[in-house]
Amino acid sequence: MTATEARPVEVSPTLTADAALDARRRQGLPVLSLTSGEIGLPVLPLLRRALADAAPENGYGPVAGAVALRTAAAGYWERRGLPTDPGLVVCGPGSKPLLFALVLAIGGDVVVPVPSWVSYRQHAILAGGEPIAVPAPPGEGGVPDPAELRAAVLRARSRGRDPRTVIVTVPDNPTGTVAGPETVRALAEVCRDLGLVIVSDEIYGDLVYDERARASSPARFAPERTVVTTGLAKNLALGGWRIGVCRLPAGPLGRRLHERLVAIASQLWSATAAPVQAAAACAFREPPEVVGRLRAARRLHETVARAAAERFRAAGVPVPPVRATCYLYPDLEPLRGRLAAVHGVRDGAGLAGLLVERHGIGVLPGSLFGEAAGSLTVRVSTSRLYGQAEAERNAALSADLPLRLPWIGRALDHLATALHDLTT
Amino acid sequence: MTATEARPVEVSPTLTADAALDARRRQGLPVLSLTSGEIGLPVLPLLRRALADAAPENGYGPVAGAVALRTAAAGYWERRGLPTDPGLVVCGPGSKPLLFALVLAIGGDVVVPVPSWVSYRQHAILAGGEPIAVPAPPGEGGVPDPAELRAAVLRARSRGRDPRTVIVTVPDNPTGTVAGPETVRALAEVCRDLGLVIVSDEIYGDLVYDERARASSPARFAPERTVVTTGLAKNLALGGWRIGVCRLPAGPLGRRLHERLVAIASQLWSATAAPVQAAAACAFREPPEVVGRLRAARRLHETVARAAAERFRAAGVPVPPVRATCYLYPDLEPLRGRLAAVHGVRDGAGLAGLLVERHGIGVLPGSLFGEAAGSLTVRVSTSRLYGQAEAERNAALSADLPLRLPWIGRALDHLATALHDLTT
Repeated sequence: MTATEARPVEVSPTLTADAALDARRRQGLPVLSLTSGEIGLPVLPLLRRALADAAPENGYGPVAGAVALRTAAAGYWERRGLPTDPGLVVCGPGSKPLLFALVLAIGGDVVVPVPSWVSYRQHAILAGGEPIAVPAPPGEGGVPDPAELRAAVLRARSRGRDPRTVIVTVPDNPTGTVAGPETVRALAEVCRDLGLVIVSDEIYGDLVYDERARASSPARFAPERTVVTTGLAKNLALGGWRIGVCRLPAGPLGRRLHERLVAIASQLWSATAAPVQAAAACAFREPPEVVGRLRAARRLHETVARAAAERFRAAGVPVPPVRATCYLYPDLEPLRGRLAAVHGVRDGAGLAGLLVERHGIGVLPGSLFGEAAGSLTVRVSTSRLYGQAEAERNAALSADLPLRLPWIGRALDHLATALHDLTT
Repeated sequence: MTATEARPVEVSPTLTADAALDARRRQGLPVLSLTSGEIGLPVLPLLRRALADAAPENGYGPVAGAVALRTAAAGYWERRGLPTDPGLVVCGPGSKPLLFALVLAIGGDVVVPVPSWVSYRQHAILAGGEPIAVPAPPGEGGVPDPAELRAAVLRARSRGRDPRTVIVTVPDNPTGTVAGPETVRALAEVCRDLGLVIVSDEIYGDLVYDERARASSPARFAPERTVVTTGLAKNLALGGWRIGVCRLPAGPLGRRLHERLVAIASQLWSATAAPVQAAAACAFREPPEVVGRLRAARRLHETVARAAAERFRAAGVPVPPVRATCYLYPDLEPLRGRLAAVHGVRDGAGLAGLLVERHGIGVLPGSLFGEAAGSLTVRVSTSRLYGQAEAERNAALSADLPLRLPWIGRALDHLATALHDLTT
């Protein structure tokens, strides 16, 4: 294959997996969508007004983003222990395009943990590189095991590949776990030894349940080589507004990367929607409404995701410790014999298919996150359980006991019933 | 260089060329910015309201764009003689990312006319291909000369390259000219003969001055192989809102491209800002306010761009016939001897530098559009002359005689004075 050959690319499965459920819904059958990471919560009124007020803004503005936005984002990171030069902040129409542009800007091959978000591997391929998969340590998803990382990079170099970047997700999608500080520190040291850039996707950073136990960014341990990305899709449910920001490291690497990233951004997207930038600046300044919403959303995710994890554990299915996000990552391995014997299911895709067809439940198989096809892990997202109408969603945010809300209770019962059926 | 080597990329010069002018402005010196293609006109109140009303929309929605937007865009094309299936419309955060994603989706090398918009060449390089430059016929910018196209593609194939796409701009940036129907027809025939896809950037399609003389899209002559892209940045001055749409051909090629383009879009940007899509749907439905604004903007561009062209012609500088857009493309070749003798200027970059430093006038040298470095062509954009404040811009839109508005008159006098100085 030459460099100019059309490269294979997969449709982002998290964006299309709901189609099968839709068909069932149209037949009037009950469905339980646990696939999408889209956060089903309303836009804060404050941010609606900020967007509306910025509607007259129609200039392109700076490629890297408006000064007001970059300054606000720098303050956001500073409040989280990462002093940030607004001149080293770059925004884009989502953290997804920023992550792709970073991979293009750095060049070379890309190490990704297993499991990890589907798009990292596709970005490496679209940029002409190779994704190099390294398993995460048990219970600490989102970072490659440091010792295995070293071995994998040396192996890749010995066969002529050129790994330059390690992408990590802290806290993690798909597992909802958080890599511990010692693991992140060891990872940072390996990356320093081997001259690797760390791209740390911290879009779930505000969704660690224990407010005092913030996730450790690799930028604390290897500040000279860590790029941090985040956005407003997860903490403030603004996925459809499409905005992300990244924070480049101070020092020569950061300055070189900034020049190259802005050049690439200028060719790929020019600038990010100006009214959205204005509203995002408001969000990153974190006025009280925003802080209050973050706290409420975090508590809601925690309550519902942990309740869902309990349903799996009650069925004898192990789930890594859910400490953040709205995701859990059960492994149905203990049910393998039964799934094969009763349902003819032998892999993750078959398991996901069984759950849709027999129970109207949508989940994503671990294979989409880089696991072997035979794995019986699935990613379960609770982010769409909080209600359909805005009133329900607001009720979920303000409820003392969200599990007692009928629509959330029904969803968890639906899940428990399906798991009971699979095990008996 | 391997496929994974970091590829060279240039900052989009139209987005950075204003820096030198800013320095002068800060010194209180008069400046005349003729560099940027950003349209200095206000957002229509109707569209501000549409954006504000859509602020609650925070879901990702379909990768290809909301049904309402795709249906509205299909209607827009249908009214222009191109019946369109909304299922073959794809939107993105600007036509720039769409053009890049199309180049990735098609693969191979890319033929671009000379002169042409700076980003086409960079997209080809970023996607791992080679830009193959073919001159446009005199006075018909935006399309490669059909006979030269054939020869260039055959030459490229004989040296092992794989040209698959021809990018055209109808009407043209940077020249403000419009390729005639016979040229477009001949181009379409060559592309059919050689099995090339045509990507027709028609973002200036609504800015042909003579409403009865609409530009000929290659989609009329080679409907089975032409992709049309457009956006709202030029006709409605919504550049900073970032939205573009493309129309894929009906038939097998279009269906294959659709699948691949949507897959790539799902990995590069997921979706386009939902509130912007809603406002864009309103715009593409073309209610009377939109039609009225298009007419007023078109007339303003025509009046000012033609007046600017007259200033050049009065100084003995030829300008190709300006029939659309807010651009003109004078060639200062007749002044070469004088520029070299008096000012030591021997190329386009030197000429642009002289105009900034001596006269505070910003233009872009033709070399940025693919011309030889020695060329003395420059691209002149009148899109920032319509006023600074919203009231001035609205006055320009509604003026019977916009050239009599003091700020526009002063700008043209500034230009005439500088040209007089260069020639005497």
